[in-house]
Amino acid sequence: MESLGGTGPRSRVRRNPSAARYDEATIHAIFDEARFCHVGFVRDGGPVVIPTIHDRQGDTLYFHGSRSASMLHAMTSPAGACVTATLFDGMVLARSVFMHTMNYRSAVAFGHPEEVTDAGEKLAVLGHFTEHVLPGRTTEARAPNERELGLTTVVRMRIEEASAKVDDGPPEDEPEDMDLPVWAGIVPASLTWGEPIADSTGAVGALSLPLPPSVLRLLGRSLP
Amino acid sequence: MESLGGTGPRSRVRRNPSAARYDEATIHAIFDEARFCHVGFVRDGGPVVIPTIHDRQGDTLYFHGSRSASMLHAMTSPAGACVTATLFDGMVLARSVFMHTMNYRSAVAFGHPEEVTDAGEKLAVLGHFTEHVLPGRTTEARAPNERELGLTTVVRMRIEEASAKVDDGPPEDEPEDMDLPVWAGIVPASLTWGEPIADSTGAVGALSLPLPPSVLRLLGRSLP
Repeated sequence: MESLGGTGPRSRVRRNPSAARYDEATIHAIFDEARFCHVGFVRDGGPVVIPTIHDRQGDTLYFHGSRSASMLHAMTSPAGACVTATLFDGMVLARSVFMHTMNYRSAVAFGHPEEVTDAGEKLAVLGHFTEHVLPGRTTEARAPNERELGLTTVVRMRIEEASAKVDDGPPEDEPEDMDLPVWAGIVPASLTWGEPIADSTGAVGALSLPLPPSVLRLLGRSLP
Repeated sequence: MESLGGTGPRSRVRRNPSAARYDEATIHAIFDEARFCHVGFVRDGGPVVIPTIHDRQGDTLYFHGSRSASMLHAMTSPAGACVTATLFDGMVLARSVFMHTMNYRSAVAFGHPEEVTDAGEKLAVLGHFTEHVLPGRTTEARAPNERELGLTTVVRMRIEEASAKVDDGPPEDEPEDMDLPVWAGIVPASLTWGEPIADSTGAVGALSLPLPPSVLRLLGRSLP
């Protein structure tokens, strides 16, 4: 089992350690499946948690936003950042209220973000972003121009420590509760895509265009 | 428009202020719809972000967990906590890569959590928790006993400051991009419940019991 930059006191899973995972493959897969994450940083001595889009390349997480985004500046402070991605997989209904729980996969990564200033690296990172959110979309939409690149701040965070937690089991009831006439089991949950809504504005309305390959693939439909 | 304990520097939305909401109804509705949240706190000077289940009553958020849960202890430190709930509503595909974004609703609340020690209040709070996650479930499953209450720590956080962000619009492209032959629009996303999986263990297997009313209601099915 590989560990991600070593497991330190920040990344050790303290509760329910049997659900803990420290291998790169599990941690990376959670960040890759998650469409967004939550970034934690310290401002004026207190914690702040903001949802944002991320991308992962190797052991580095990337973030982007407007040049004036205060989050991107705050997360590069010396206190570092904590980035958490959570995938909610369902409710676990036990025979007793006490044993009810959730099935979920979460990854928690710690590091010290820094701004990416090289224009070539920025452009590459922004391409990865789009491909993470919707594979294939970079070749469909207009690429960023110099002005847009200049308006965008990109931040990278090498993962110094990380851990994951994977809860995927059935309900675990007390032995004395097993014969109670109470339904127990799992109600699975997943993120589902709905029917796309074409933008109705513009002279050449998107309404008249077929769904692009990126969206067809996302929805599991066959390409023309 | 009511504000939630006033808007201070911590809760002011800095990016895309037109999407900002500071009214109680919007903030409360996001926390109520979210099945889980992310709690941020400061440990050893650095930020930590952990997913957890919450419940809201009035202007107070509640959290619970094992008596030994380090998160519950850490979040009651003087630095306070930041609690963020995010509902992902879809991808917004624009004609240019630069204008791609997400539709989401998020609520960010700040406060100073403290432990609930009164046994009656704890019991009431735990009942609310179950009803938040799955309305009706408290009357179906075995209620907590004294031992289980003793093993559970409950923490309350009065919301001192909060804000919400609601991004729900169509793509906004540059005027010069509006005639590009690029599909633009929204791909909606939502959390969907799957077919329940009954627990196959136990002498009187849950397999032989019908789905309970709480689950039937969750799935939008008619009660027997």
